[in-house]
Amino acid sequence: MSDLRVVVVGAGLSGLACARELRRAGAEVTVLEARTRVGGRTEGGSTAEGAPLELGGQWLGPTQTRMYELVAELGLETFPTYNIGQHVVQLGGRTSRMGSRRGAVPKLSPFVLADLFQGLTRFTRAARQVPLDEPWRAPGADRLDRETFETWIRRNLRTEVGRTYFRVATEAVFAAEAGDFSALHALFYAHSGTDFEGLISVDRGAQQDRIVGGSVRVAERLAEELGDAVHLGQVVVGVEHDGHGVRLATRGGPVHSADRAVITLPPVLAGRLGYTPPLPSWRDQLTQRLPAGAVIKVFAVYDEPFWRAEGLTGQAASDEGPVKITFDNSPPSGTPGVMLGFIEAGEARTWARRSPKEREEAVIGCFARYFGSRARSHREYVERDWTAEEFTRGCYGAHFVPGTWTAFGPLLRRPVGRLHWAGTECSAVWNGYMEGAVRSGEEAAREVLASS
Amino acid sequence: MSDLRVVVVGAGLSGLACARELRRAGAEVTVLEARTRVGGRTEGGSTAEGAPLELGGQWLGPTQTRMYELVAELGLETFPTYNIGQHVVQLGGRTSRMGSRRGAVPKLSPFVLADLFQGLTRFTRAARQVPLDEPWRAPGADRLDRETFETWIRRNLRTEVGRTYFRVATEAVFAAEAGDFSALHALFYAHSGTDFEGLISVDRGAQQDRIVGGSVRVAERLAEELGDAVHLGQVVVGVEHDGHGVRLATRGGPVHSADRAVITLPPVLAGRLGYTPPLPSWRDQLTQRLPAGAVIKVFAVYDEPFWRAEGLTGQAASDEGPVKITFDNSPPSGTPGVMLGFIEAGEARTWARRSPKEREEAVIGCFARYFGSRARSHREYVERDWTAEEFTRGCYGAHFVPGTWTAFGPLLRRPVGRLHWAGTECSAVWNGYMEGAVRSGEEAAREVLASS
Repeated sequence: MSDLRVVVVGAGLSGLACARELRRAGAEVTVLEARTRVGGRTEGGSTAEGAPLELGGQWLGPTQTRMYELVAELGLETFPTYNIGQHVVQLGGRTSRMGSRRGAVPKLSPFVLADLFQGLTRFTRAARQVPLDEPWRAPGADRLDRETFETWIRRNLRTEVGRTYFRVATEAVFAAEAGDFSALHALFYAHSGTDFEGLISVDRGAQQDRIVGGSVRVAERLAEELGDAVHLGQVVVGVEHDGHGVRLATRGGPVHSADRAVITLPPVLAGRLGYTPPLPSWRDQLTQRLPAGAVIKVFAVYDEPFWRAEGLTGQAASDEGPVKITFDNSPPSGTPGVMLGFIEAGEARTWARRSPKEREEAVIGCFARYFGSRARSHREYVERDWTAEEFTRGCYGAHFVPGTWTAFGPLLRRPVGRLHWAGTECSAVWNGYMEGAVRSGEEAAREVLASS
Repeated sequence: MSDLRVVVVGAGLSGLACARELRRAGAEVTVLEARTRVGGRTEGGSTAEGAPLELGGQWLGPTQTRMYELVAELGLETFPTYNIGQHVVQLGGRTSRMGSRRGAVPKLSPFVLADLFQGLTRFTRAARQVPLDEPWRAPGADRLDRETFETWIRRNLRTEVGRTYFRVATEAVFAAEAGDFSALHALFYAHSGTDFEGLISVDRGAQQDRIVGGSVRVAERLAEELGDAVHLGQVVVGVEHDGHGVRLATRGGPVHSADRAVITLPPVLAGRLGYTPPLPSWRDQLTQRLPAGAVIKVFAVYDEPFWRAEGLTGQAASDEGPVKITFDNSPPSGTPGVMLGFIEAGEARTWARRSPKEREEAVIGCFARYFGSRARSHREYVERDWTAEEFTRGCYGAHFVPGTWTAFGPLLRRPVGRLHWAGTECSAVWNGYMEGAVRSGEEAAREVLASS
């Protein structure tokens, strides 16, 4: 293997995990990263006083085994997401509190609760039947892929509040609206991340743990290991490939030659590189059908996490925006208090076009609506609009629009000659999450090694 | 205006019509075309003996006023699509014939006919209510945009054959499946092209007329007029834009500077150019949500159009592929006989990956199924897979996936500084057709002139 040369495009978790595996097998690896930092959709930030903020993906939870292993291997530590007390729930104009244990239910009328229960049961049962490696073989896949998840919700829930609950949860999980993607994708995605309830939970769910120092530490440690194999600020613009090798041209920089390339960009961006010869139509049309979600991650920094003293977790869920979902994102010490909010999907599109000042006012207004007027005494406001990021163009990940899983699913991970594809969107397990990114990167490394 | 310099990207009908209008107003125009030919999604071809074949868009019909005017201005002529006799219809395993007059109905059971009639009536009534300039203001737009057209069909037709009829017509009109785009888009598109029945008709419909010598003549004549303003083989790869002007870099070629640029590429391809500064997120995310359809246009050439003598129009519609729709595409003289077929949507994806020989056999098999064994005595087979075209990447046009019209519709034609957008996907009228391309190009020219 000592002769094998591989270029990995993208120094997000997927690209770095891939490069590490390749190097361990003896390959000569070069990682090309367009940004002047590593981490991709994970990103470090900090408050004015230097406390770490996590501007991108950040949580770990049960069954994300590769991430927990990786965190330990890299000498990092996790700590539990703050989850003591009650959540705030605002649905249909009514505010209530609910327990923070998984399985707790909001205070809703018995009719709504019964509806929600049967809707979640149906969803969970259908999701479990989606084979993760072959979602297009799920029972009723054709019909489920030809309808939106919104239509599924309308068909399977009877009460308006029950439907709203599903829609709010959908936006929180996908950064997209239920009308934007297929019902089959919703079912696949939930099963890929174990189950729907887990995806929206802190307690034994996808938001259970955080990484001390910030999630970007994982990418930073991986990049340290790889040393000068990682080239920052190299925007790949052209990919020549043939039976003998690949040549990747960078904007205003050198051309990198190798035996094979692993492209770990989000599908839309992977589709935008200039390929010579052009990609086959099946691959090109696939990348036309995987748009990214829209999310602005917003933070308010306080002297302390004041909501804790009032018995609140800092978590809110609401059907009224612009911030519909919040979390306590303070560092392990609890100081400063960091309130995290998400502006998602349609709200993100609307609010991305306002001024930062207008957004800050609206965000703080939401925090005050959930946690009282002390939310107005923030000392700092920080935000990251992921749709504006040239080298990501939307978060958390891509969603499969109706028709895509059944028509293009079998082609999702298929290499084109010496070009291999990775990234969280390629993962059968924990698709859309950091776990999926790492798994996909490592899988692509094995694929490259097996082909060489 | 004599100082205004404009670069138009793309020498399809939209770009050429735009450039012509700009030049008439006194602007200095440069057209950059990636291919070594003009015409974009119209393309000339010929049989071995030199009879013209039309490899791309080709038909004209009532209310396409700009195209008929343009054809006349350019000294070209139209002739009626051959439509004498009966059509062949195969649905649910049964073959029948039907008249070729608009409004004729296939021989189906009274239950199916009643269902089809009520379904078409509902569709037509809803389509008429979609405002072409603002589809997102249609009655019930939110719900219609959050469901696929497939769901609409299931909700509004009761019989399986009625639903199949809608699906076959959908594939013929959109080169996509009813599950691929929103119900609102289906309604908008039909209204944009007058009405659904017109879109699928030759008699007083969108396939009424053809252009003598082939539709590509329109682009060729426009390009002749523009002379050396049209630069072929110039692949635009970078677009720098600021408050003072635009600079377009071409692959291995010169940089073209101008005051403004009009980009007439299909939305996906427009989204793939390298912009500096990057496009705003609303524009970028829009181009992530407009995938192109899939179609392979296939031709068999015969000594004569043998079906005519048997009282057949040469038109067939079937629910069994790979070719589900055919037309008599012979030249005005009737010699040679040219049978045209479309392999669309899912069939196109499947068959694009087979060998040309396998496709030819399957296509001729379909023609024989519709028109008898004489179809097997073809002397030539010609095909064009539009998804494989590097500078188109799918035909006939883009479809709006669910959620796109309501979330991004108001931004469809909005310029970004000195960058303007054109192409048939931008047109309110005859969106997706040659007529829409020309209208959009001319509209963009007026927009540029008004901004300067």
